[in-house]
Amino acid sequence: MECFDTHMHSEGKGITELRAMAKRGIKRVVSCSYYPIPPSSPETLIDEFRKLETFEVERGKRAGMSIYPAIGVHPRCIPPNYEKALRYVEENAKIIGEIGLETANDLEVEVLKAQLEIAKVRDVPCVIHTPKKNKLEVTEKILKLLEDLSFPEDLAVIDHATEKTVPVIMDKGYWIGLTVQKGKITSEEVARIVERHGFERFLLNSDTGFNDEEMFTTAETVEFLLEKFDKVDVEKIAFKNAEKVFRV
Amino acid sequence: MECFDTHMHSEGKGITELRAMAKRGIKRVVSCSYYPIPPSSPETLIDEFRKLETFEVERGKRAGMSIYPAIGVHPRCIPPNYEKALRYVEENAKIIGEIGLETANDLEVEVLKAQLEIAKVRDVPCVIHTPKKNKLEVTEKILKLLEDLSFPEDLAVIDHATEKTVPVIMDKGYWIGLTVQKGKITSEEVARIVERHGFERFLLNSDTGFNDEEMFTTAETVEFLLEKFDKVDVEKIAFKNAEKVFRV
Repeated sequence: MECFDTHMHSEGKGITELRAMAKRGIKRVVSCSYYPIPPSSPETLIDEFRKLETFEVERGKRAGMSIYPAIGVHPRCIPPNYEKALRYVEENAKIIGEIGLETANDLEVEVLKAQLEIAKVRDVPCVIHTPKKNKLEVTEKILKLLEDLSFPEDLAVIDHATEKTVPVIMDKGYWIGLTVQKGKITSEEVARIVERHGFERFLLNSDTGFNDEEMFTTAETVEFLLEKFDKVDVEKIAFKNAEKVFRV
Repeated sequence: MECFDTHMHSEGKGITELRAMAKRGIKRVVSCSYYPIPPSSPETLIDEFRKLETFEVERGKRAGMSIYPAIGVHPRCIPPNYEKALRYVEENAKIIGEIGLETANDLEVEVLKAQLEIAKVRDVPCVIHTPKKNKLEVTEKILKLLEDLSFPEDLAVIDHATEKTVPVIMDKGYWIGLTVQKGKITSEEVARIVERHGFERFLLNSDTGFNDEEMFTTAETVEFLLEKFDKVDVEKIAFKNAEKVFRV
């Protein structure tokens, strides 16, 4: 079954890796903006956004893969004068991401809020990172921010969810991203989660990027789920929900 | 035999590709600065230089490869206010590259000259690109620029040389980079060149980067040369000359 990796970083992948992913059935991906060192200026991010929207999309085509770029300011990549980068996001983003909170300090909250406001006004779906550390607490902080903004349920994907955070996100009605990657969750955990909570609100992704050797985890998880569940259900998490969220 | 890829772009490679290169014997590389779309500001390049010097070097280590970063303004990547990027180069470069001429217009010449002046004053080796189009003519233009600056022979690698440009570069005494890649030269051509001109002044590289499927060409060429020539000679082009040029 074809699958849609809803959160990865194509800029960290070589062309033979992208081609291998496409051959393995991962024909569509959302490639999220991320800068691997703290950027010294908003221009660095703006050029990275432009690179994602043009060069990376072309590179995807060469590799047999549709790349949908998500642009936005990641909490670990906030440059001085970040507002300038957000103006570019406001004018250009079809998907906003990877945004979210890492340590959840005031600056991160300010930048996330500004991006959520743009997303709400411009009706753009968002890929929202939750951190490894204090995941439940920071997830709840993000949910509170969304609630305070009356943020539309269908525009937010709360990503890197775990068995512990899924129930609180489900309660609020947002989309939930399940990231199958070392240090995140396993295919078995995904199976337990969908067994309990159904397939309707979940997206699969690998978060594979600059330093990850694993890149086929979405395809592997889909195969694993197909052994246990109905095809029509697995299709939802494999690609149908993603088509709805990202409107492709 | 281990080999030294003297010009590639690690930023376009994924970690599994870097690991595969290292396993194939390519244990040391010079990773040259390049931005795949025209950068809108010098800060974009400065952050890319910093990324090469830190994040990429670390990524190389993880993959079992020593990455030596070359930083500089490529003729296709000249931002407005490029002087600011050159100040960073002046203060930080251990290798300057990829610099050179593409169309050889006035701005490219100005930027190349400024970087060569930095290299001369600060005694830093340079990796100098020659273009596909009008290669002989532009190579001669570069050699004239070097001559006008009384540029030290041992600080310049004239790269992407061909059977046609090798003799004119040899005449001037600079190092010569042979790039084995689709659209550039083949292992057979390298063999013919060293048969005629000896092994003393040549370096091997792949120029492999963002869109190249081929990444083992230096190792393949070394194996090919070992079938025809003495090991002690092949070692020169495989890594010994590179050690001298880049002082590692």
